[in-house]
Amino acid sequence: MGQTRGVRKIHVIGIGAGDPDQLTLQAVKALRGTDVFFLLDKGEVKSDLTRLRRDILEAHLPAGSYRVVEARDPERDREAGGSAYSSAVGDWRSARAGIYERLIAEELDEDGTGAFLVWGDPALYDSTLGILEEVLERGAVAFTHDVVPGISSVSALAARHRTGLNRVARPVQITTGRRLAEGFPDGVDDVVVMLDAHQSFRRYAEEGREDMDIYWGAYIGTPDEILVSGPIAEAGPRIARLRAEARERKGWIMDTYLLRRRPGDA
Amino acid sequence: MGQTRGVRKIHVIGIGAGDPDQLTLQAVKALRGTDVFFLLDKGEVKSDLTRLRRDILEAHLPAGSYRVVEARDPERDREAGGSAYSSAVGDWRSARAGIYERLIAEELDEDGTGAFLVWGDPALYDSTLGILEEVLERGAVAFTHDVVPGISSVSALAARHRTGLNRVARPVQITTGRRLAEGFPDGVDDVVVMLDAHQSFRRYAEEGREDMDIYWGAYIGTPDEILVSGPIAEAGPRIARLRAEARERKGWIMDTYLLRRRPGDA
Ligand SMILES: C[S@@+](CC[C@H](N)C(=O)[O-])C[C@H]1O[C@@H](n2cnc3c(N)ncnc32)[C@H](O)[C@@H]1O
Ligand SMILES: C[S@@+](CC[C@H](N)C(=O)[O-])C[C@H]1O[C@@H](n2cnc3c(N)ncnc32)[C@H](O)[C@@H]1O
Repeated sequence: MGQTRGVRKIHVIGIGAGDPDQLTLQAVKALRGTDVFFLLDKGEVKSDLTRLRRDILEAHLPAGSYRVVEARDPERDREAGGSAYSSAVGDWRSARAGIYERLIAEELDEDGTGAFLVWGDPALYDSTLGILEEVLERGAVAFTHDVVPGISSVSALAARHRTGLNRVARPVQITTGRRLAEGFPDGVDDVVVMLDAHQSFRRYAEEGREDMDIYWGAYIGTPDEILVSGPIAEAGPRIARLRAEARERKGWIMDTYLLRRRPGDA
Repeated sequence: MGQTRGVRKIHVIGIGAGDPDQLTLQAVKALRGTDVFFLLDKGEVKSDLTRLRRDILEAHLPAGSYRVVEARDPERDREAGGSAYSSAVGDWRSARAGIYERLIAEELDEDGTGAFLVWGDPALYDSTLGILEEVLERGAVAFTHDVVPGISSVSALAARHRTGLNRVARPVQITTGRRLAEGFPDGVDDVVVMLDAHQSFRRYAEEGREDMDIYWGAYIGTPDEILVSGPIAEAGPRIARLRAEARERKGWIMDTYLLRRRPGDA
Protein backbone atom coordinates (compact mmCIF):
# COMPACT_ATOMS: atom_id res chain seq x y z
CA MET A 1 0.00 0.00 0.00
CA GLY A 2 0.94 3.62 0.25
CA GLN A 3 2.42 3.99 -3.24
CA THR A 4 1.45 7.63 -3.07
CA ARG A 5 3.36 8.57 0.03
CA GLY A 6 1.45 10.51 2.60
CA VAL A 7 -2.03 9.98 1.20
CA ARG A 8 -4.40 7.84 3.20
CA LYS A 9 -6.42 5.30 1.25
CA ILE A 10 -9.92 4.12 2.07
CA HIS A 11 -11.72 1.08 0.68
CA VAL A 12 -15.49 1.04 0.92
CA ILE A 13 -16.16 -2.67 0.69
CA GLY A 14 -19.55 -4.22 0.03
CA ILE A 15 -19.65 -7.49 1.97
CA GLY A 16 -22.97 -8.92 0.82
CA ALA A 17 -26.20 -9.02 2.75
CA GLY A 18 -25.76 -11.91 5.15
CA ASP A 19 -24.02 -14.89 3.59
CA PRO A 20 -20.25 -14.57 4.10
CA ASP A 21 -19.75 -16.47 0.83
CA GLN A 22 -21.32 -13.52 -0.98
CA LEU A 23 -18.01 -11.76 -0.60
CA THR A 24 -16.35 -11.20 -3.98
CA LEU A 25 -12.74 -12.05 -4.76
CA GLN A 26 -12.20 -8.31 -5.21
CA ALA A 27 -13.50 -7.73 -1.69
CA VAL A 28 -11.16 -10.38 -0.29
CA LYS A 29 -8.21 -8.70 -2.04
CA ALA A 30 -9.26 -5.32 -0.65
CA LEU A 31 -9.53 -6.81 2.86
CA ARG A 32 -6.00 -8.17 2.48
CA GLY A 33 -4.71 -4.74 1.47
CA THR A 34 -6.21 -3.03 4.50
CA ASP A 35 -4.36 -2.00 7.66
CA VAL A 36 -7.25 -0.71 9.75
CA PHE A 37 -10.91 -1.69 9.68
CA PHE A 38 -13.47 0.73 10.99
CA LEU A 39 -16.46 -1.11 12.43
CA LEU A 40 -19.31 1.16 13.36
CA ASP A 41 -21.84 -0.37 15.64
CA LYS A 42 -25.47 0.34 15.08
CA GLY A 43 -27.49 -0.22 18.20
CA GLU A 44 -29.59 -3.29 18.62
CA VAL A 45 -28.65 -5.21 15.52
CA LYS A 46 -25.12 -4.66 16.68
CA SER A 47 -23.99 -7.96 18.05
CA ASP A 48 -25.06 -10.08 15.08
CA LEU A 49 -23.92 -7.77 12.30
CA THR A 50 -20.66 -6.73 13.93
CA ARG A 51 -20.03 -10.40 14.65
CA LEU A 52 -20.50 -11.23 10.97
CA ARG A 53 -17.97 -8.56 9.99
CA ARG A 54 -15.44 -9.87 12.49
CA ASP A 55 -16.01 -13.43 11.28
CA ILE A 56 -15.30 -12.29 7.73
CA LEU A 57 -12.03 -10.69 8.80
CA GLU A 58 -11.00 -13.76 10.78
CA ALA A 59 -11.84 -16.07 7.90
CA HIS A 60 -9.76 -14.18 5.35
CA LEU A 61 -6.91 -12.52 7.18
CA PRO A 62 -4.04 -13.86 9.26
CA ALA A 63 -4.53 -12.95 12.91
CA GLY A 64 -2.41 -10.00 13.91
CA SER A 65 -2.11 -8.65 10.36
CA TYR A 66 -4.72 -5.96 10.81
CA ARG A 67 -6.29 -3.66 13.34
CA VAL A 68 -9.98 -3.16 14.10
CA VAL A 69 -11.30 0.11 15.44
CA GLU A 70 -14.83 0.04 16.74
CA ALA A 71 -16.83 3.21 17.11
CA ARG A 72 -20.33 4.07 18.11
CA ASP A 73 -22.35 5.07 15.08
CA PRO A 74 -25.10 7.57 15.87
CA GLU A 75 -27.41 5.82 13.46
CA ARG A 76 -31.10 6.29 13.72
CA ASP A 77 -33.13 3.18 14.27
CA ARG A 78 -32.72 1.05 11.14
CA GLU A 79 -36.41 0.43 11.43
CA ALA A 80 -37.31 4.10 11.40
CA GLY A 81 -40.13 4.91 9.07
CA GLY A 82 -42.83 7.51 8.82
CA SER A 83 -42.01 11.18 9.01
CA ALA A 84 -38.95 10.49 11.15
CA TYR A 85 -37.24 8.91 8.21
CA SER A 86 -35.97 11.70 6.05
CA SER A 87 -36.07 14.57 8.50
CA ALA A 88 -32.86 15.21 10.38
CA VAL A 89 -30.99 12.85 8.08
CA GLY A 90 -28.76 15.80 7.19
CA ASP A 91 -27.80 16.60 10.79
CA TRP A 92 -27.28 13.02 11.57
CA ARG A 93 -25.03 12.67 8.57
CA SER A 94 -22.91 15.60 9.76
CA ALA A 95 -22.54 14.04 13.17
CA ARG A 96 -21.33 10.89 11.49
CA ALA A 97 -18.95 12.86 9.25
CA GLY A 98 -17.30 14.17 12.43
CA ILE A 99 -16.81 10.66 13.70
CA TYR A 100 -15.47 9.32 10.39
CA GLU A 101 -13.13 12.28 10.10
CA ARG A 102 -11.71 11.63 13.52
CA LEU A 103 -11.32 7.89 12.85
CA ILE A 104 -9.47 8.49 9.60
CA ALA A 105 -7.28 11.25 10.98
CA GLU A 106 -6.41 9.60 14.28
CA GLU A 107 -6.46 5.88 13.63
CA LEU A 108 -4.86 5.71 10.20
CA ASP A 109 -1.22 6.49 9.43
CA GLU A 110 -0.65 8.98 6.67
CA ASP A 111 0.32 6.22 4.27
CA GLY A 112 -2.08 3.65 5.69
CA THR A 113 -5.12 1.98 4.15
CA GLY A 114 -8.42 1.86 6.00
CA ALA A 115 -11.68 0.18 5.14
CA PHE A 116 -15.37 0.42 5.91
CA LEU A 117 -17.26 -2.85 5.54
CA VAL A 118 -20.66 -2.02 4.14
CA TRP A 119 -23.63 -4.33 4.38
CA GLY A 120 -24.87 -5.49 0.98
CA ASP A 121 -23.93 -3.10 -1.80
CA PRO A 122 -22.60 0.34 -0.81
CA ALA A 123 -24.77 1.81 -3.60
CA LEU A 124 -28.12 0.95 -2.01
CA TYR A 125 -29.53 2.79 0.99
CA ASP A 126 -26.22 3.17 2.68
CA SER A 127 -24.72 6.44 3.85
CA THR A 128 -21.01 5.60 3.91
CA LEU A 129 -20.20 7.17 0.52
CA GLY A 130 -22.16 10.33 1.30
CA ILE A 131 -20.40 10.69 4.63
CA LEU A 132 -16.96 10.22 3.10
CA GLU A 133 -17.82 12.92 0.52
CA GLU A 134 -18.73 15.20 3.37
CA VAL A 135 -15.48 14.46 5.20
CA LEU A 136 -13.56 15.34 2.04
CA GLU A 137 -15.50 18.58 1.64
CA ARG A 138 -14.67 19.63 5.18
CA GLY A 139 -11.06 19.45 4.12
CA ALA A 140 -9.58 18.57 7.50
CA VAL A 141 -8.25 15.18 6.41
CA ALA A 142 -7.26 14.10 2.91
CA PHE A 143 -7.64 10.61 1.46
CA THR A 144 -8.38 8.77 -1.75
CA HIS A 145 -11.12 6.16 -1.78
CA ASP A 146 -12.50 3.40 -3.94
CA VAL A 147 -15.60 1.23 -3.79
CA VAL A 148 -15.91 -2.53 -4.04
CA PRO A 149 -19.46 -3.41 -5.10
CA GLY A 150 -21.29 -6.03 -3.07
CA ILE A 151 -24.21 -8.39 -3.49
CA SER A 152 -27.20 -6.37 -2.29
CA SER A 153 -30.09 -7.80 -0.34
CA VAL A 154 -32.10 -7.13 -3.52
CA SER A 155 -29.94 -9.47 -5.59
CA ALA A 156 -29.90 -12.00 -2.77
CA LEU A 157 -33.70 -11.88 -2.50
CA ALA A 158 -34.16 -12.47 -6.22
CA ALA A 159 -31.64 -15.32 -6.22
CA ARG A 160 -33.30 -17.12 -3.31
CA HIS A 161 -36.66 -16.88 -5.05
CA ARG A 162 -35.04 -17.81 -8.37
CA THR A 163 -36.78 -14.95 -10.08
CA GLY A 164 -35.75 -11.93 -12.08
CA LEU A 165 -36.29 -8.44 -10.72
CA ASN A 166 -37.65 -7.07 -13.96
CA ARG A 167 -39.80 -8.78 -16.50
CA VAL A 168 -38.77 -8.81 -20.15
CA ALA A 169 -38.05 -5.27 -21.35
CA ARG A 170 -39.82 -3.81 -18.32
CA PRO A 171 -38.48 -1.58 -15.54
CA VAL A 172 -38.06 -2.31 -11.83
CA GLN A 173 -38.12 0.24 -9.05
CA ILE A 174 -36.33 -0.04 -5.72
CA THR A 175 -37.94 1.99 -3.00
CA THR A 176 -38.62 2.23 0.73
CA GLY A 177 -41.55 1.08 2.84
CA ARG A 178 -42.35 4.66 3.62
CA ARG A 179 -42.73 5.49 -0.07
CA LEU A 180 -44.78 2.40 -0.79
CA ALA A 181 -47.15 3.51 1.97
CA GLU A 182 -47.88 6.58 -0.19
CA GLY A 183 -49.10 4.35 -3.01
CA PHE A 184 -47.89 1.86 -5.59
CA PRO A 185 -45.29 3.67 -7.73
CA ASP A 186 -46.35 4.96 -11.14
CA GLY A 187 -45.13 3.41 -14.33
CA VAL A 188 -43.79 0.14 -12.92
CA ASP A 189 -45.23 -3.23 -12.02
CA ASP A 190 -42.18 -4.62 -10.23
CA VAL A 191 -41.22 -2.89 -7.02
CA VAL A 192 -38.58 -3.93 -4.50
CA VAL A 193 -39.19 -2.56 -1.03
CA MET A 194 -36.50 -2.05 1.59
CA LEU A 195 -36.47 -0.40 5.00
CA ASP A 196 -40.11 -1.24 5.61
CA ALA A 197 -40.78 -1.16 9.33
CA HIS A 198 -44.52 -0.95 8.81
CA GLN A 199 -45.22 -3.79 6.44
CA SER A 200 -46.71 -1.52 3.85
CA PHE A 201 -47.49 -4.58 1.73
CA ARG A 202 -50.33 -5.49 4.10
CA ARG A 203 -52.58 -2.93 2.51
CA TYR A 204 -52.62 -4.90 -0.74
CA ALA A 205 -53.36 -8.07 1.18
CA GLU A 206 -56.22 -6.38 3.00
CA GLU A 207 -57.63 -5.06 -0.25
CA GLY A 208 -57.66 -8.66 -1.42
CA ARG A 209 -55.76 -7.73 -4.57
CA GLU A 210 -55.71 -10.61 -7.00
CA ASP A 211 -53.26 -9.10 -9.46
CA MET A 212 -50.24 -8.99 -7.19
CA ASP A 213 -47.59 -11.46 -6.03
CA ILE A 214 -45.05 -10.95 -3.29
CA TYR A 215 -41.56 -12.47 -2.94
CA TRP A 216 -40.44 -11.82 0.61
CA GLY A 217 -37.29 -12.65 2.53
CA ALA A 218 -35.99 -11.93 6.01
CA TYR A 219 -32.40 -12.39 7.25
CA ILE A 220 -31.59 -13.53 3.71
CA GLY A 221 -28.38 -15.52 3.44
CA THR A 222 -28.14 -16.15 7.18
CA PRO A 223 -29.10 -19.26 9.15
CA ASP A 224 -32.30 -17.44 10.20
CA GLU A 225 -33.43 -16.88 6.61
CA ILE A 226 -37.18 -16.99 6.01
CA LEU A 227 -38.67 -16.92 2.52
CA VAL A 228 -42.31 -16.65 1.50
CA SER A 229 -43.82 -16.05 -1.91
CA GLY A 230 -47.27 -16.16 -3.42
CA PRO A 231 -50.32 -14.08 -4.23
CA ILE A 232 -50.36 -11.12 -1.85
CA ALA A 233 -53.83 -11.87 -0.46
CA GLU A 234 -52.72 -15.29 0.70
CA ALA A 235 -49.04 -14.71 1.46
CA GLY A 236 -49.39 -11.24 3.02
CA PRO A 237 -51.01 -12.32 6.31
CA ARG A 238 -48.63 -15.26 6.57
CA ILE A 239 -45.64 -12.93 6.17
CA ALA A 240 -47.02 -10.49 8.75
CA ARG A 241 -47.28 -13.32 11.25
CA LEU A 242 -43.86 -14.85 10.54
CA ARG A 243 -42.28 -11.41 10.61
CA ALA A 244 -43.76 -10.55 14.00
CA GLU A 245 -42.66 -13.88 15.46
CA ALA A 246 -39.13 -13.58 14.10
CA ARG A 247 -38.75 -10.03 15.26
CA GLU A 248 -39.93 -10.99 18.70
CA ARG A 249 -37.52 -13.90 18.83
CA LYS A 250 -34.37 -12.11 17.61
CA GLY A 251 -35.10 -8.58 18.74
CA TRP A 252 -34.59 -7.14 15.24
CA ILE A 253 -35.43 -7.97 11.67
CA MET A 254 -34.13 -7.17 8.21
CA ASP A 255 -36.54 -7.93 5.42
CA THR A 256 -36.96 -7.04 1.78
CA TYR A 257 -39.58 -7.95 -0.79
CA LEU A 258 -40.53 -7.73 -4.41
CA LEU A 259 -44.11 -6.80 -5.24
CA ARG A 260 -45.06 -7.90 -8.71
CA ARG A 261 -48.24 -6.67 -10.32
CA ARG A 262 -49.49 -8.60 -13.29
CA PRO A 263 -49.44 -6.01 -16.06
CA GLY A 264 -52.73 -5.10 -17.61
CA ASP A 265 -54.76 -6.02 -14.52
CA ALA A 266 -53.97 -2.72 -12.81
CA MET B 1 -22.75 -34.02 -6.04
CA GLY B 2 -25.79 -36.08 -6.88
CA GLN B 3 -26.97 -36.70 -3.31
CA THR B 4 -30.46 -37.04 -4.70
CA ARG B 5 -29.85 -39.86 -7.11
CA GLY B 6 -31.27 -39.42 -10.53
CA VAL B 7 -32.12 -35.74 -10.31
CA ARG B 8 -30.08 -33.36 -12.41
CA LYS B 9 -28.95 -30.18 -10.71
CA ILE B 10 -28.45 -26.82 -12.37
CA HIS B 11 -26.62 -23.81 -10.96
CA VAL B 12 -27.41 -20.45 -12.48
CA ILE B 13 -24.29 -18.51 -11.56
CA GLY B 14 -23.93 -14.75 -11.75
CA ILE B 15 -20.32 -14.05 -12.71
CA GLY B 16 -20.23 -10.25 -12.48
CA ALA B 17 -20.25 -7.80 -15.31
CA GLY B 18 -16.70 -7.80 -16.58
CA ASP B 19 -14.12 -7.97 -13.80
CA PRO B 20 -13.32 -11.63 -13.07
CA ASP B 21 -12.63 -10.63 -9.45
CA GLN B 22 -16.30 -9.75 -9.11
CA LEU B 23 -16.96 -13.44 -8.74
CA THR B 24 -18.24 -14.29 -5.27
CA LEU B 25 -16.88 -17.06 -3.09
CA GLN B 26 -20.28 -18.70 -3.43
CA ALA B 27 -19.90 -18.62 -7.21
CA VAL B 28 -16.45 -20.18 -6.99
CA LYS B 29 -17.87 -22.99 -4.82
CA ALA B 30 -20.69 -23.52 -7.29
CA LEU B 31 -18.20 -23.68 -10.17
CA ARG B 32 -16.24 -26.32 -8.27
CA GLY B 33 -19.38 -28.37 -7.77
CA THR B 34 -20.26 -28.38 -11.46
CA ASP B 35 -19.64 -31.19 -13.92
CA VAL B 36 -20.78 -29.56 -17.15
CA PHE B 37 -20.81 -25.89 -18.11
CA PHE B 38 -23.16 -24.72 -20.79
CA LEU B 39 -21.71 -21.76 -22.66
CA LEU B 40 -24.12 -20.19 -25.08
CA ASP B 41 -22.56 -17.98 -27.65
CA LYS B 42 -24.25 -14.79 -28.57
CA GLY B 43 -23.13 -13.55 -31.97
CA GLU B 44 -20.77 -10.69 -32.27
CA VAL B 45 -19.86 -10.11 -28.66
CA LYS B 46 -19.11 -13.80 -28.60
CA SER B 47 -15.37 -14.03 -28.62
CA ASP B 48 -14.76 -11.60 -25.77
CA LEU B 49 -17.54 -12.71 -23.47
CA THR B 50 -17.11 -16.43 -24.06
CA ARG B 51 -13.38 -15.95 -23.56
CA LEU B 52 -14.04 -14.30 -20.18
CA ARG B 53 -16.18 -17.24 -19.12
CA ARG B 54 -13.50 -19.72 -20.16
CA ASP B 55 -10.85 -17.68 -18.35
CA ILE B 56 -12.94 -17.82 -15.19
CA LEU B 57 -13.23 -21.59 -15.43
CA GLU B 58 -9.51 -21.98 -16.09
CA ALA B 59 -8.61 -19.71 -13.18
CA HIS B 60 -10.71 -21.58 -10.63
CA LEU B 61 -10.89 -25.19 -11.72
CA PRO B 62 -8.27 -27.87 -12.28
CA ALA B 63 -7.93 -28.66 -15.97
CA GLY B 64 -9.76 -31.84 -16.88
CA SER B 65 -12.13 -31.67 -13.91
CA TYR B 66 -15.06 -30.33 -15.91
CA ARG B 67 -16.63 -30.33 -19.32
CA VAL B 68 -17.71 -27.36 -21.42
CA VAL B 69 -20.54 -27.61 -23.91
CA GLU B 70 -20.88 -24.72 -26.29
CA ALA B 71 -24.10 -24.07 -28.12
CA ARG B 72 -25.38 -21.45 -30.46
CA ASP B 73 -27.82 -19.20 -28.67
CA PRO B 74 -30.48 -17.77 -30.96
CA GLU B 75 -30.28 -14.47 -29.13
CA ARG B 76 -31.41 -11.32 -30.79
CA ASP B 77 -28.88 -8.58 -31.15
CA ARG B 78 -27.97 -7.41 -27.63
CA GLU B 79 -28.19 -3.93 -29.04
CA ALA B 80 -31.73 -4.39 -30.26
CA GLY B 81 -33.97 -1.53 -29.37
CA GLY B 82 -37.09 0.08 -30.75
CA SER B 83 -40.10 -1.99 -31.62
CA ALA B 84 -37.97 -5.07 -32.20
CA TYR B 85 -37.18 -5.29 -28.54
CA SER B 86 -40.19 -6.84 -26.94
CA SER B 87 -41.92 -8.33 -29.97
CA ALA B 88 -41.16 -11.94 -30.63
CA VAL B 89 -39.38 -12.24 -27.30
CA GLY B 90 -41.82 -15.02 -26.47
CA ASP B 91 -41.06 -17.07 -29.59
CA TRP B 92 -37.41 -16.53 -29.22
CA ARG B 93 -37.61 -17.69 -25.64
CA SER B 94 -39.34 -20.90 -26.71
CA ALA B 95 -36.65 -21.56 -29.27
CA ARG B 96 -34.09 -21.19 -26.56
CA ALA B 97 -36.07 -23.43 -24.21
CA GLY B 98 -35.76 -26.16 -26.82
CA ILE B 99 -32.00 -25.76 -26.91
CA TYR B 100 -31.62 -25.67 -23.12
CA GLU B 101 -33.85 -28.73 -22.79
CA ARG B 102 -31.72 -30.65 -25.23
CA LEU B 103 -28.48 -29.56 -23.54
CA ILE B 104 -29.70 -30.64 -20.12
CA ALA B 105 -31.20 -33.90 -21.30
CA GLU B 106 -28.35 -34.97 -23.56
CA GLU B 107 -25.22 -33.50 -22.05
CA LEU B 108 -25.86 -34.01 -18.36
CA ASP B 109 -25.93 -37.37 -16.59
CA GLU B 110 -28.99 -38.06 -14.52
CA ASP B 111 -27.09 -37.38 -11.32
CA GLY B 112 -24.88 -34.68 -12.79
CA THR B 113 -24.64 -30.97 -12.03
CA GLY B 114 -24.69 -28.42 -14.81
CA ALA B 115 -24.26 -24.67 -14.74
CA PHE B 116 -25.09 -21.62 -16.78
CA LEU B 117 -22.71 -18.70 -16.28
CA VAL B 118 -24.77 -15.54 -16.40
CA TRP B 119 -23.32 -12.12 -17.08
CA GLY B 120 -23.74 -9.74 -14.12
CA ASP B 121 -26.64 -10.71 -11.90
CA PRO B 122 -29.11 -13.32 -13.21
CA ALA B 123 -31.94 -11.15 -11.80
CA LEU B 124 -31.41 -8.23 -14.19
CA TYR B 125 -32.38 -8.33 -17.86
CA ASP B 126 -31.35 -11.90 -18.33
CA SER B 127 -33.53 -14.65 -19.69
CA THR B 128 -31.86 -17.75 -18.24
CA LEU B 129 -34.26 -18.16 -15.30
CA GLY B 130 -37.31 -17.66 -17.49
CA ILE B 131 -36.07 -20.21 -19.97
CA LEU B 132 -35.35 -22.79 -17.28
CA GLU B 133 -38.88 -22.26 -15.94
CA GLU B 134 -40.19 -22.93 -19.40
CA VAL B 135 -38.09 -26.08 -19.74
CA LEU B 136 -39.52 -27.31 -16.43
CA GLU B 137 -43.06 -26.55 -17.58
CA ARG B 138 -42.59 -28.55 -20.76
CA GLY B 139 -41.92 -31.52 -18.49
CA ALA B 140 -39.59 -33.42 -20.82
CA VAL B 141 -36.57 -33.20 -18.50
CA ALA B 142 -36.57 -32.84 -14.72
CA PHE B 143 -34.00 -30.94 -12.68
CA THR B 144 -33.62 -28.82 -9.57
CA HIS B 145 -31.93 -25.46 -9.80
CA ASP B 146 -30.50 -22.72 -7.65
CA VAL B 147 -29.25 -19.22 -8.31
CA VAL B 148 -26.00 -17.60 -7.24
CA PRO B 149 -26.44 -13.82 -7.29
CA GLY B 150 -23.80 -11.78 -9.09
CA ILE B 151 -22.52 -8.23 -9.13
CA SER B 152 -24.64 -6.51 -11.77
CA SER B 153 -23.38 -3.90 -14.17
CA VAL B 154 -25.58 -1.51 -12.18
CA SER B 155 -23.65 -2.13 -8.95
CA ALA B 156 -20.38 -2.03 -10.85
CA LEU B 157 -21.31 1.30 -12.44
CA ALA B 158 -22.17 2.87 -9.10
CA ALA B 159 -18.98 1.55 -7.50
CA ARG B 160 -16.74 2.91 -10.25
CA HIS B 161 -18.39 6.32 -9.91
CA ARG B 162 -18.31 6.02 -6.10
CA THR B 163 -21.92 7.05 -5.90
CA GLY B 164 -25.10 5.59 -4.49
CA LEU B 165 -27.91 4.54 -6.80
CA ASN B 166 -30.61 6.12 -4.69
CA ARG B 167 -30.46 9.33 -2.72
CA VAL B 168 -31.45 9.33 0.95
CA ALA B 169 -34.89 7.77 1.38
CA ARG B 170 -35.60 8.10 -2.35
CA PRO B 171 -36.33 5.43 -4.94
CA VAL B 172 -34.28 4.36 -7.96
CA GLN B 173 -35.63 2.84 -11.13
CA ILE B 174 -33.78 0.47 -13.44
CA THR B 175 -35.07 0.55 -16.98
CA THR B 176 -34.16 0.15 -20.65
CA GLY B 177 -33.08 2.65 -23.26
CA ARG B 178 -36.26 1.95 -25.16
CA ARG B 179 -38.40 2.94 -22.17
CA LEU B 180 -36.36 6.04 -21.45
CA ALA B 181 -36.97 7.10 -25.05
CA GLU B 182 -40.68 7.26 -24.14
CA GLY B 183 -39.94 9.84 -21.46
CA PHE B 184 -38.28 10.25 -18.07
CA PRO B 185 -40.02 7.81 -15.70
CA ASP B 186 -42.63 9.20 -13.31
CA GLY B 187 -42.03 9.45 -9.61
CA VAL B 188 -38.27 8.99 -9.59
CA ASP B 189 -35.25 11.22 -10.06
CA ASP B 190 -32.64 8.46 -10.25
CA VAL B 191 -32.85 6.19 -13.25
CA VAL B 192 -30.40 3.52 -14.35
CA VAL B 193 -30.59 2.74 -18.04
CA MET B 194 -29.47 -0.54 -19.60
CA LEU B 195 -29.77 -1.98 -23.09
CA ASP B 196 -29.68 1.44 -24.70
CA ALA B 197 -28.61 1.07 -28.30
CA HIS B 198 -29.91 4.51 -29.18
CA GLN B 199 -28.32 6.73 -26.55
CA SER B 200 -31.64 7.96 -25.33
CA PHE B 201 -29.81 10.25 -22.91
CA ARG B 202 -28.85 12.54 -25.81
CA ARG B 203 -32.26 14.08 -25.81
CA TYR B 204 -31.63 15.62 -22.39
CA ALA B 205 -28.27 16.89 -23.56
CA GLU B 206 -29.86 18.43 -26.64
CA GLU B 207 -32.53 20.08 -24.53
CA GLY B 208 -29.69 21.66 -22.56
CA ARG B 209 -31.15 20.40 -19.29
CA GLU B 210 -29.37 21.95 -16.36
CA ASP B 211 -31.00 19.84 -13.67
CA MET B 212 -29.57 16.49 -14.69
CA ASP B 213 -26.30 14.63 -14.20
CA ILE B 214 -25.18 11.46 -15.93
CA TYR B 215 -22.85 8.74 -14.64
CA TRP B 216 -21.93 6.61 -17.61
CA GLY B 217 -19.74 3.54 -18.03
CA ALA B 218 -18.86 1.24 -20.90
CA TYR B 219 -17.13 -2.17 -20.67
CA ILE B 220 -17.14 -1.62 -16.91
CA GLY B 221 -14.66 -3.79 -15.04
CA THR B 222 -12.73 -4.73 -18.17
CA PRO B 223 -9.45 -3.31 -19.51
CA ASP B 224 -11.52 -1.30 -22.01
CA GLU B 225 -13.55 0.45 -19.33
CA ILE B 226 -14.57 4.04 -20.05
CA LEU B 227 -16.21 6.25 -17.42
CA VAL B 228 -17.70 9.70 -17.83
CA SER B 229 -19.79 11.74 -15.43
CA GLY B 230 -21.05 15.28 -15.23
CA PRO B 231 -23.95 17.55 -16.12
CA ILE B 232 -25.82 15.98 -19.03
CA ALA B 233 -25.50 19.03 -21.30
CA GLU B 234 -21.73 18.89 -21.10
CA ALA B 235 -21.10 15.15 -20.64
CA GLY B 236 -23.78 13.92 -23.05
CA PRO B 237 -22.07 14.92 -26.31
CA ARG B 238 -18.74 13.67 -24.97
CA ILE B 239 -20.26 10.28 -24.16
CA ALA B 240 -21.91 10.07 -27.58
CA ARG B 241 -18.53 10.62 -29.23
CA LEU B 242 -16.57 8.21 -27.00
CA ARG B 243 -19.27 5.60 -27.39
CA ALA B 244 -19.24 5.80 -31.19
CA GLU B 245 -15.45 5.56 -31.28
CA ALA B 246 -15.32 2.61 -28.88
CA ARG B 247 -18.06 0.77 -30.71
CA GLU B 248 -16.27 1.29 -33.98
CA ARG B 249 -13.00 0.07 -32.52
CA LYS B 250 -14.28 -3.08 -30.78
CA GLY B 251 -17.27 -3.91 -32.96
CA TRP B 252 -19.65 -3.98 -29.98
CA ILE B 253 -20.35 -2.04 -26.84
CA MET B 254 -21.95 -2.62 -23.45
CA ASP B 255 -22.81 0.53 -21.58
CA THR B 256 -24.99 1.55 -18.67
CA TYR B 257 -25.70 4.85 -17.04
CA LEU B 258 -27.40 6.56 -14.15
CA LEU B 259 -29.41 9.70 -14.89
CA ARG B 260 -29.85 11.80 -11.80
CA ARG B 261 -32.27 14.68 -11.77
CA ARG B 262 -31.87 17.23 -9.04
CA PRO B 263 -35.17 16.99 -7.19
CA GLY B 264 -37.36 20.04 -7.19
CA ASP B 265 -35.92 21.41 -10.43
CA ALA B 266 -38.07 19.17 -12.59
C1 LIG C 1 -29.90 0.46 5.37
S1 LIG C 1 -30.47 -0.65 4.15
C2 LIG C 1 -28.94 -1.30 3.55
C3 LIG C 1 -29.08 -2.08 2.27
C4 LIG C 1 -27.78 -2.72 1.83
N1 LIG C 1 -26.79 -1.71 1.44
C5 LIG C 1 -28.00 -3.71 0.70
O1 LIG C 1 -27.39 -3.55 -0.38
O2 LIG C 1 -28.76 -4.66 0.88
C6 LIG C 1 -31.13 -1.93 5.16
C7 LIG C 1 -32.27 -2.67 4.49
O3 LIG C 1 -31.74 -3.63 3.60
C8 LIG C 1 -32.55 -4.78 3.59
N2 LIG C 1 -31.71 -5.94 3.99
C9 LIG C 1 -30.39 -5.90 4.23
N3 LIG C 1 -29.93 -7.14 4.50
C10 LIG C 1 -30.98 -7.97 4.41
C11 LIG C 1 -31.13 -9.38 4.55
N4 LIG C 1 -30.11 -10.18 4.86
N5 LIG C 1 -32.38 -9.90 4.40
C12 LIG C 1 -33.42 -9.12 4.08
N6 LIG C 1 -33.32 -7.79 3.93
C13 LIG C 1 -32.11 -7.22 4.08
C14 LIG C 1 -33.71 -4.52 4.53
O4 LIG C 1 -34.78 -4.02 3.73
C15 LIG C 1 -33.16 -3.45 5.42
O5 LIG C 1 -34.19 -2.64 5.93
C1 LIG D 1 -28.82 -8.30 -21.33
S1 LIG D 1 -28.38 -7.11 -20.12
C2 LIG D 1 -27.62 -8.11 -18.90
C3 LIG D 1 -27.40 -7.40 -17.60
C4 LIG D 1 -26.68 -8.27 -16.59
N1 LIG D 1 -27.49 -9.40 -16.16
C5 LIG D 1 -26.23 -7.44 -15.39
O1 LIG D 1 -26.60 -7.79 -14.24
O2 LIG D 1 -25.49 -6.48 -15.58
C6 LIG D 1 -27.03 -6.32 -20.95
C7 LIG D 1 -26.88 -4.87 -20.57
O3 LIG D 1 -26.19 -4.80 -19.34
C8 LIG D 1 -25.34 -3.68 -19.31
N2 LIG D 1 -23.96 -4.14 -19.08
C9 LIG D 1 -23.58 -5.42 -18.85
N3 LIG D 1 -22.28 -5.48 -18.62
C10 LIG D 1 -21.80 -4.22 -18.69
C11 LIG D 1 -20.50 -3.64 -18.53
N4 LIG D 1 -19.44 -4.39 -18.23
N5 LIG D 1 -20.40 -2.30 -18.66
C12 LIG D 1 -21.46 -1.54 -18.94
N6 LIG D 1 -22.70 -2.04 -19.11
C13 LIG D 1 -22.87 -3.37 -18.98
C14 LIG D 1 -25.53 -2.94 -20.63
O4 LIG D 1 -26.51 -1.94 -20.44
C15 LIG D 1 -26.06 -4.04 -21.52
O5 LIG D 1 -26.87 -3.50 -22.56
